[in-house]
Amino acid sequence: MNAHWLESVTFNAEGLVPAIAQDVKTGRILMMAWMNADSLAETAATHRAVYWSRSRRKLWRKGEESGYEQVVHEIRLDCDGDVIVLAVEQKGGISCHTGRESCFFRRLDGDADEADWVITDPVLKDPELIYK
Amino acid sequence: MNAHWLESVTFNAEGLVPAIAQDVKTGRILMMAWMNADSLAETAATHRAVYWSRSRRKLWRKGEESGYEQVVHEIRLDCDGDVIVLAVEQKGGISCHTGRESCFFRRLDGDADEADWVITDPVLKDPELIYK
Repeated sequence: MNAHWLESVTFNAEGLVPAIAQDVKTGRILMMAWMNADSLAETAATHRAVYWSRSRRKLWRKGEESGYEQVVHEIRLDCDGDVIVLAVEQKGGISCHTGRESCFFRRLDGDADEADWVITDPVLKDPELIYK
Repeated sequence: MNAHWLESVTFNAEGLVPAIAQDVKTGRILMMAWMNADSLAETAATHRAVYWSRSRRKLWRKGEESGYEQVVHEIRLDCDGDVIVLAVEQKGGISCHTGRESCFFRRLDGDADEADWVITDPVLKDPELIYK
């Protein structure tokens, strides 16, 4: 699992690197999760997004429960080597566990102290029907 | 500095949240940096991206040295409240300290152990001319 290219990636003290998933067609940012070296290597090998679940402390093959896999078209690394961007095709059009297209479904509206988060995206499928 | 909307943001143990800057016109992901509550509040108030420099341990008003400010059109928060996305207009078209449009200028090419990072983006301006 220790390919040469992995040595250019700087993992943090917990052995993780943030990975941003972006829709390859629309450019919309779908989610950010974390990867360890194994999940990044498996992502590159299988062209399916594999993250590290910090809460469950295990590899999280995106879609393994929901069916909403991410087919990975491109993997990019930033200048410091400590952030990954994935260009993905989101199967089923839902990446968020709330049943929405994107996890970034809240926008800050209004100015200063009057500002608040507004939900801009519909729930496409009831999460109770996704995670049976 | 403690607006109501800030309470929806979950900062990590160091008091920071990752912030992804995306070009508002092209959708290209330009960079990821970190924000503390003060930098997020100032970003919302001034519509200029302000990050927290972990290396310099101080507020980093993007463009303060380079001139390459980011005008913030939109601030989004993810489902867990622990990642920010900024839709920005990148002044000068350069967000990376290497003089490139985006920090994500390396793409993984090739398969398995033969894979390696390939630079896909030109340097638009010599960094030595940016940081005088």
